[in-house]
Amino acid sequence: MSNIILSINAGSSSVKISVYKSPPSSSSQIDPIQLAEAEVSGLTAPPAKLKYTRGETRIKDRELSDIDSQESAFRFILDHLTQDSGLPELAQKEDIQYTCHRVVHGGDYPRSQVIDKDTYHHIEELSDLAPLHNAPALSIVKSVSELLPHAINVAYFDSAFHTSIPEHIQTYPIDQSVAKRNKLKKYGFHGISYDFIVHAVAQHLNKPKEELNIVALHLGSGASACCIRSGRSFDTSMGLTPLAGLPGATRSGSIDPSLMFHFTHSAGKPSRASSANLHITQAEEILNKKSGWKSLTGTTDFGAISASEREEDRLAFDIFVDRILNYVGPYFVKLDGNVDALVFAGGIGEKGTRLREEVVKSVRCLGFEIDLDKNKQSPEQVVTDISKTGNRFRTLICQTDEQLQMARGVLEDQDRFSHK
Amino acid sequence: MSNIILSINAGSSSVKISVYKSPPSSSSQIDPIQLAEAEVSGLTAPPAKLKYTRGETRIKDRELSDIDSQESAFRFILDHLTQDSGLPELAQKEDIQYTCHRVVHGGDYPRSQVIDKDTYHHIEELSDLAPLHNAPALSIVKSVSELLPHAINVAYFDSAFHTSIPEHIQTYPIDQSVAKRNKLKKYGFHGISYDFIVHAVAQHLNKPKEELNIVALHLGSGASACCIRSGRSFDTSMGLTPLAGLPGATRSGSIDPSLMFHFTHSAGKPSRASSANLHITQAEEILNKKSGWKSLTGTTDFGAISASEREEDRLAFDIFVDRILNYVGPYFVKLDGNVDALVFAGGIGEKGTRLREEVVKSVRCLGFEIDLDKNKQSPEQVVTDISKTGNRFRTLICQTDEQLQMARGVLEDQDRFSHK
Repeated sequence: MSNIILSINAGSSSVKISVYKSPPSSSSQIDPIQLAEAEVSGLTAPPAKLKYTRGETRIKDRELSDIDSQESAFRFILDHLTQDSGLPELAQKEDIQYTCHRVVHGGDYPRSQVIDKDTYHHIEELSDLAPLHNAPALSIVKSVSELLPHAINVAYFDSAFHTSIPEHIQTYPIDQSVAKRNKLKKYGFHGISYDFIVHAVAQHLNKPKEELNIVALHLGSGASACCIRSGRSFDTSMGLTPLAGLPGATRSGSIDPSLMFHFTHSAGKPSRASSANLHITQAEEILNKKSGWKSLTGTTDFGAISASEREEDRLAFDIFVDRILNYVGPYFVKLDGNVDALVFAGGIGEKGTRLREEVVKSVRCLGFEIDLDKNKQSPEQVVTDISKTGNRFRTLICQTDEQLQMARGVLEDQDRFSHK
Repeated sequence: MSNIILSINAGSSSVKISVYKSPPSSSSQIDPIQLAEAEVSGLTAPPAKLKYTRGETRIKDRELSDIDSQESAFRFILDHLTQDSGLPELAQKEDIQYTCHRVVHGGDYPRSQVIDKDTYHHIEELSDLAPLHNAPALSIVKSVSELLPHAINVAYFDSAFHTSIPEHIQTYPIDQSVAKRNKLKKYGFHGISYDFIVHAVAQHLNKPKEELNIVALHLGSGASACCIRSGRSFDTSMGLTPLAGLPGATRSGSIDPSLMFHFTHSAGKPSRASSANLHITQAEEILNKKSGWKSLTGTTDFGAISASEREEDRLAFDIFVDRILNYVGPYFVKLDGNVDALVFAGGIGEKGTRLREEVVKSVRCLGFEIDLDKNKQSPEQVVTDISKTGNRFRTLICQTDEQLQMARGVLEDQDRFSHK
């Protein structure tokens, strides 16, 4: 049996799997070694397409037939990997020792969990809080023990990093008996990414993680901000679900809580995406899937929006900058001004040259300033410093990698998992 | 005919009326002169009670029978005023030249409006956006032309001050065709108070209003924050309705927009407060009337909460401080650090010694610092400076007076009103 780790990241219309092996025990390398990466996208806009990278071997946009769900994409990628003769480390399913699943909502779980019958049942239950967000991962988790009975299957939660948020920040001022019964509080998400960011930035700054104070922005088609104090989450922009906080590609972010009842009289009625197991209101579907950049500009591509001079694109861009300030401002204050860095991560964080420029210009009164040339270069390192030389506070770009962070977790926690 | 101005401030369970006369044209005084003030409270917890002040004459807590609505309270106060022999300026209803009505939601009205059939109809229509908040004033507005046919009746809107908020801040990233059709955007409230604050603070600092940059906090049983740039509203914490932003006595403030659908399955159903004219969902009633301090601590009295050591009171206090930071931080940034003052106003802003101390301590990294002794004294002036001597940024307490601000508006705008 080999010691392959699969890191699985299932989104609403894609499944991405990174293949790792453990580093040789003789080497000084402690991170898992990536062997290949496969992604099936377009599940909701068939035909689905395969992207595959192994060393110099690359497949791009190969159209697939009959792949229309996360589960079928997962099965397809498994077959593809075991049949790739250039990947002898994974010749049969039994070579897979661990699978890691990115699960968005993990309730109060403070860390990863081996998936057995009990944990699966519990994850399913708490998915009621964010059915739209947990559904993609759950459909794979459901079939994994049947497909890979030899593997240890571990759930990594986007919420786990935020269990350190203090009570007065995570509590909503609502009826506490209902809040406790229905588990209504701020959970926060993107935690696997923030975990990676803390690790990478601490290393870059040569500081112990426990002393790291940063304002981190994970800006992708879903976007959030996190106030990281002493290496742990102190506050974050997302809430009970990923809907709260910053807007995203198709997500409104924070709005007046009564807005939806003035948007449609059917706000509380089940949406078409609802099923016996998934309870999704029309409001949740509209605010998560039919809002954000898409509703303002017609596209979910923030790069195109940033480059455009159309009025609606400028509005969307300005809205995003404004809403980001709504989190950088207070998080700076909550760190009492002791901030090691403002960190940009996620697809837009990495590629959004103009966005970074505007955001940092807007917070210059706090002491941030970037070097416009450094800001324009494509980041090549995991962490790139774009601060103006000699500037009081750093501004960094971090190429976050949730799959790697999960695989790292496996190596760190092997003892805990094998006790199960 | 005399030239009496009545300023009417109707809340959900009270009606407060201040009586003014114009200053003599020979004097240098330009503000209206207050003659008396009457308040009927407890409309939702009968018996209602009268509080009345005229010079040295004071009535306190006189129980009233058969007064159980804003309209009946208004009629009662009118009779009380005309029958008070110590108030000869208002011996008959015809002495009333103007009535000013504080109306919470004024849609896109950028300034006060004389109430005629058309404006009444329009105000009624836009009250659909905030029926819970506009209802108290509307019931008085409705009867005023019948009761006071000789008076000019003027509506002052809490939203008017915020019509200067730029488009990218007032736009929600949602379907814009629905947003435009249903008028869904950030309006903001407490504007009559912010107008007063700008006037008073500019005078105190001896600065033209147009150059005033402040972060203002109106903290009462309803609470909001406002970023005032060049004397005008640039951003505010309330939104489409007064629900968004800071929590209040019975109001949740901002929460995850999907929370209510996990609080109750009846979120979108009509509440018991709904009627043929008022469409109020259960969600809106719960979040506006059954949340906030009351839901956390059992009391709406923030003074008692601040003084208490009970765990739930400390939690409520800490939540309020935290949420205030969520606005002071970004508003400081949006003023580019060019801030004349942080201003506390409203009942809690004026009386909340401990709250001010905690908030200012929390934003010390921005450069604010107060004098703890000055902070402890009861403010006697309209504006009291509690900053540490020599401090970079000022911290002020402002005793805001919405009734006076409306009466001032009448004197300023008499020409506009008489053209109607």
